[in-house]
Amino acid sequence: MSDDVFRRDCPARVVLDHVSGRWGVLVLTALGGGDLRFFELRERIEGISEKMLSQTLRTLVRDGLVVRTVEPSVPPKVSYGLTGLGRGIGEPLRALTGWIKEHAPEIVGAQLAYDEAAMRSRNQA
Amino acid sequence: MSDDVFRRDCPARVVLDHVSGRWGVLVLTALGGGDLRFFELRERIEGISEKMLSQTLRTLVRDGLVVRTVEPSVPPKVSYGLTGLGRGIGEPLRALTGWIKEHAPEIVGAQLAYDEAAMRSRNQA
Repeated sequence: MSDDVFRRDCPARVVLDHVSGRWGVLVLTALGGGDLRFFELRERIEGISEKMLSQTLRTLVRDGLVVRTVEPSVPPKVSYGLTGLGRGIGEPLRALTGWIKEHAPEIVGAQLAYDEAAMRSRNQA
Repeated sequence: MSDDVFRRDCPARVVLDHVSGRWGVLVLTALGGGDLRFFELRERIEGISEKMLSQTLRTLVRDGLVVRTVEPSVPPKVSYGLTGLGRGIGEPLRALTGWIKEHAPEIVGAQLAYDEAAMRSRNQA
């Protein structure tokens, strides 16, 4: 098995698609605070559709990062939580989102400067 | 400025979309090894189209993570490198891709088990 994430057929690249990307990160981060039910996840993560949330959860369950538990009540109560593997990826993910939060003002500043420069060069043309 | 990545209008969430996601991670990781020209990045990152690479680079330059340098030669030589900010995000990104590479065999195993269970339950139905 290749471990070169730059290769098209590298399994690590497929996993990277699942856990990184907006929704994967947000679901794993939300579950880091403890198990949640589907509607709780939907409320926590603003802007996620039911379809995207179902898809994201199914992918993360298949990857062995999230476990789906059905309590045999009426109606059945379904909740989602992190597996040991899912808890393991929590640390690097938190480091990444932490860095981004900390540096968001610098990045937003860079975006504004870029847009102003682009506007100036358009006006000069 | 909100620092809650779960909020739809949080600037950190927009940045998360840029740096995470397959192409952002791979471009930032590739540039971690030193400046590269456009065609070198394209060769390094299997499967990325010219259009996706241009788009990804433009976004990362706008975010202040990547700098584009034009050498005034004939023809002009354009190269891309990390800014200080871009080098800063390298560490959490490497931690994430390192974790994924290390655990890829476990995740691939989980995927196979999931697919086999799904196939068995289909055959029983």
